[in-house]
Amino acid sequence: MEGYRTFLSLLACSLLLGFLGVLFALVWVFHWREGLSWDGGLAEFNWHPVLMVAGFIFIQGIAITVYRLPWTWNCSKLLMKFIHAGLHCIALILVVVSVVAVFDFHNAKNIPNMYSLHSWVGLTLVILYAMQILFGFLVYLLPFAPVSLRTSLMPLHTFSGIFIFGAVIATALMGFTEKLIFALKNPSYSTSPPEAIFVNTLGILILLFGGFVLWMVTRPQWKRPQELISKFQPSTGATPDCTEEVSTATACSNDDKSDVEFNSEAAARRRKLDEAGQRSTM
Amino acid sequence: MEGYRTFLSLLACSLLLGFLGVLFALVWVFHWREGLSWDGGLAEFNWHPVLMVAGFIFIQGIAITVYRLPWTWNCSKLLMKFIHAGLHCIALILVVVSVVAVFDFHNAKNIPNMYSLHSWVGLTLVILYAMQILFGFLVYLLPFAPVSLRTSLMPLHTFSGIFIFGAVIATALMGFTEKLIFALKNPSYSTSPPEAIFVNTLGILILLFGGFVLWMVTRPQWKRPQELISKFQPSTGATPDCTEEVSTATACSNDDKSDVEFNSEAAARRRKLDEAGQRSTM
Repeated sequence: MEGYRTFLSLLACSLLLGFLGVLFALVWVFHWREGLSWDGGLAEFNWHPVLMVAGFIFIQGIAITVYRLPWTWNCSKLLMKFIHAGLHCIALILVVVSVVAVFDFHNAKNIPNMYSLHSWVGLTLVILYAMQILFGFLVYLLPFAPVSLRTSLMPLHTFSGIFIFGAVIATALMGFTEKLIFALKNPSYSTSPPEAIFVNTLGILILLFGGFVLWMVTRPQWKRPQELISKFQPSTGATPDCTEEVSTATACSNDDKSDVEFNSEAAARRRKLDEAGQRSTM
Repeated sequence: MEGYRTFLSLLACSLLLGFLGVLFALVWVFHWREGLSWDGGLAEFNWHPVLMVAGFIFIQGIAITVYRLPWTWNCSKLLMKFIHAGLHCIALILVVVSVVAVFDFHNAKNIPNMYSLHSWVGLTLVILYAMQILFGFLVYLLPFAPVSLRTSLMPLHTFSGIFIFGAVIATALMGFTEKLIFALKNPSYSTSPPEAIFVNTLGILILLFGGFVLWMVTRPQWKRPQELISKFQPSTGATPDCTEEVSTATACSNDDKSDVEFNSEAAARRRKLDEAGQRSTM
């Protein structure tokens, strides 16, 4: 892998930033706010920032990055798809609980729902995220979609995933702004009390986390090498499971089209794979 | 150009969204707020959202997209660089005036500066944007940087440009949230008065504008074909000016490395260009 150490350094930085983001969210609600509970009060609201930072930002960020980890390249694509989809599903569950918490809190306190730009964008993103996961499941996990469809839809899948991730971070920053203005009264937000500095820093951490993740997942040289077998058996999309053939596969080009030209070595691999037989892995 | 009509449709949509964004910002400050003036009052503050939407979002978005316009591909790269850099410079001027307006307003009203997450991120982005323009000028407009340096720094240049653009949109959404909470008191933001709905819609327009621009500038098939001449004369980076050679140049691969292999037709073009002589265009 080209620039392996750089990748590892960036990965370590992004994980540290994401972990710090979750830690900061927890410290915020426990040290300055009412902690966490499920009683219709402010402590129930607090699940909202904590679970959003943990699920919609940190776990979603890891789910997006997971294909880029070079030590997973010799594992089957199916396994990686399950990890990718599984992490997104865990994130979605946390997001839904987080949304329920804030609606429950609003209803208990007779605060209107869905009036702010934060809520408009946020709920739209939750719906889009659920649709994105469903779309990914139907097209890339179930064995029915032909390879041509998967290939043609991949740019949309990756772009919408990255766009949702970026927009979620923007929405979180709006949410911090709202909460700090509403919650900090004496002293007010404008006097920069320690809580304001702390939560502003949380916002910066999350923004940097997003930047690191987006850099890593948009570098062509760190893209998971494309399985040769997907070229050979377009009707089934079968992939070998943790074979050397995959780990040494020719790196695909930067776009998502199947424009890799195979050489004689690839043809030899094809024959080898054909002979060995592959199990269908969707 | 592959998908020319799709590109045109997306471009039209993005221009419409950006134009509507600027229009909405103007309607907001003139219909619901105090209009525009330079008196240290709220009408001076209003320059801030108007100029930020017009400069930091709309014009920056166009500046990012400008290389993708297929009817400019037969013009010299230098001309396009000047247009790209010129638009960014216009945007920066509007941004600086916009920042001066808000500091001036705060100082006149004894409101603290730089306490909010919006201001922290926003001012950082203004500084990064100025540095990005300076960096682009030094490396890509002045004739001193070798092609190898330009090539190796291009991924950083494009990523940081796109990241700044996305983060600016996030910052604008924070700004709208702040302003609506502070300004709407009777009726309050939570009762969803027409102004709140209107400005929330402005936020959605801007987010969509960002999405369209980011989609267009990240599609490999819509990338400006790389000038052949940059391969032939790496020491000068000379480009022909509005010649057919450029307009029909081989499209480069999706990454920013010089990995295009030239065929005999390209070699013939090289000879033709060599014979014609090229003026240095940095």
